[in-house]
Amino acid sequence: MFYAVIPAGGSGTRLWPLSRAGHPKFLHALTGTPATLLQATVHRLGALADPESTYVVTGVSHAAAVARQLPALPDANILVEPSPRDSCAAIGLAAAIIATRDPHAVMGSFAADHLVRDGDAFTAAVLSAVDGARDGLLMTIGITPTHPETGYGYLRCGEAVGEGPVSRVEEFTEKPPYDVAVSYVESGRYFWNASMFIWRVDVFLAELHRQQPQLHAGLTRIAAAWDSAERERVLGDVWPTLPKISVDYAVMEGAAATGMVGTVPGDFGWTDVGDFDTLGDVLERDERGNVVIEADDGTVGKSDVVLHDTDRTVIVPRSGRLVTAVGVQDLVIVDTSDALMVCSRDRAQDVKKLVDSLKERGDSGHV
Amino acid sequence: MFYAVIPAGGSGTRLWPLSRAGHPKFLHALTGTPATLLQATVHRLGALADPESTYVVTGVSHAAAVARQLPALPDANILVEPSPRDSCAAIGLAAAIIATRDPHAVMGSFAADHLVRDGDAFTAAVLSAVDGARDGLLMTIGITPTHPETGYGYLRCGEAVGEGPVSRVEEFTEKPPYDVAVSYVESGRYFWNASMFIWRVDVFLAELHRQQPQLHAGLTRIAAAWDSAERERVLGDVWPTLPKISVDYAVMEGAAATGMVGTVPGDFGWTDVGDFDTLGDVLERDERGNVVIEADDGTVGKSDVVLHDTDRTVIVPRSGRLVTAVGVQDLVIVDTSDALMVCSRDRAQDVKKLVDSLKERGDSGHV
Repeated sequence: MFYAVIPAGGSGTRLWPLSRAGHPKFLHALTGTPATLLQATVHRLGALADPESTYVVTGVSHAAAVARQLPALPDANILVEPSPRDSCAAIGLAAAIIATRDPHAVMGSFAADHLVRDGDAFTAAVLSAVDGARDGLLMTIGITPTHPETGYGYLRCGEAVGEGPVSRVEEFTEKPPYDVAVSYVESGRYFWNASMFIWRVDVFLAELHRQQPQLHAGLTRIAAAWDSAERERVLGDVWPTLPKISVDYAVMEGAAATGMVGTVPGDFGWTDVGDFDTLGDVLERDERGNVVIEADDGTVGKSDVVLHDTDRTVIVPRSGRLVTAVGVQDLVIVDTSDALMVCSRDRAQDVKKLVDSLKERGDSGHV
Repeated sequence: MFYAVIPAGGSGTRLWPLSRAGHPKFLHALTGTPATLLQATVHRLGALADPESTYVVTGVSHAAAVARQLPALPDANILVEPSPRDSCAAIGLAAAIIATRDPHAVMGSFAADHLVRDGDAFTAAVLSAVDGARDGLLMTIGITPTHPETGYGYLRCGEAVGEGPVSRVEEFTEKPPYDVAVSYVESGRYFWNASMFIWRVDVFLAELHRQQPQLHAGLTRIAAAWDSAERERVLGDVWPTLPKISVDYAVMEGAAATGMVGTVPGDFGWTDVGDFDTLGDVLERDERGNVVIEADDGTVGKSDVVLHDTDRTVIVPRSGRLVTAVGVQDLVIVDTSDALMVCSRDRAQDVKKLVDSLKERGDSGHV
């Protein structure tokens, strides 16, 4: 029995004005199909876990939208955090709850807002990771890095475990400085961590107990009360006291140092849909390299898009208006009902700075 | 007594989606002030003609908007053409009507949608042209060309008339082919014709009679009936039969060949507001060269515009939405309530092609 856990949080600032705090990235269809990122994630995991074994951990703002996007999931499998306490609390909550039901279960945690091109290769990689997890490793999936991205974790691979494809991870380094990331990529010895974790819940909780005793104690109290009338009271008391830390820093770096982390290579066309430029690279293009990402939910009329001598441009029409471009290249044009954003593709990361400046102006209506 | 005539027609296709057939260029504030181009034109001519001596010739679609934008003009001075018959019929109609009131009047015709930076220099140039007109010349105002524009008329200057600044025009060539325009500009002997014509109405009508007898006869019939109960019947009968031809081809080329055309230089910062790139050059810029052209009429809310690392970009916010740009240069962004247009400034002329393609698609709602 495999349990799939999907932490669905984060607002996806670099995808503004499409992604907003109130309607974040994972709720949007950015997959080249009508499926939202969240729906595509659940669908992809369907080969590994049935709906009864699939959990989403999300915030109070998005619980209703998540429930409606995933009608096959039992209500009880939508775990709602009272407030954001970063990824270790979110993933740990799911692990602790699953452990009360199935103490030696293998679970995998997968971000709600990533894209995978080759679903079969993804399934095969996870199944290999499950083997490593059964042997007691905290398993990751390693992606061959293409550039010195500083927002990811890096895995230094050691010797193979058994006959492979599992390798032991000698070092797990979350978010290295740029120079360090460059040296990692140049060395050819590192993988990116794809934020996918596969482990036995008992192994993970033991390691959490060793490294983060306060988090472990709190989550254990919450899990014990989960199926009782005390759930909301205990959650309300304990959750706000939980350390706010990502699972990478809280557990993975320290576990790797004691040889407890393993990895399998993941060659399945992974992307974290970090910005509009990435979407332009991974979604289907027309003959001039343009990508039009249609609306998902029918809440706005379909926009007409008319491009004249336009190349390699990413268009996100979400207002129902006519969207046109003449003689432009390598742009991102995001057209929503209350905000327009035009950006160079090579500056797509800086959309975050724009949103920061809107926040500084007190413009809460648009962010 | 000087009569100012303003033919207000043409839809300004290259300013789409701001300018539409139903709300053309001259009705918009593209002047860097709340005044529309039409209002700015009337205001500029106020130094030369009072409202009683100022006429606008416009089409049935725009008569009401023109009347409301120009409350000081008498109703009778807004001449409404039943259908578009090009500029010779429009200007000739005004000339014929003025001639019935003041047979030797000097009139000047000035496009409704041009910008002039230096109003005093403009007035001085027109007053010089009035002198030439009193002497029996069909006067033009010559602009020193900056590039081989093929959409304008070109004036080849001959000897000075009297003590100047009036010169005789040896040749008037409307819309030359590109190669010819290049040779004209390189020769240094040519001016652009700024589509400003100053003449005695009797001189013009005599030349019209010589070159375009049918047009002359029709306009004479209409003018004779203008102040009678027969106006609408005669207009309805005669107007549709008038040759559809511009005044440049109909009268000016032939008049120049007989030595009847004069010119004075006009060094007053003229532009015909042909496209958004031009507006970016002539309107006030911020320190990074960006131009934001605000809404004129208060029918939409004021848009917030937030630019991040953006240069030399022309923004026309007309939807009330937040308009943002990140890391872009030399673009035009026009945001209206039902259509968005993003264009490279160096392709601003090609907006016309985009509109043509919309027409081909049968998209009458947006053009």
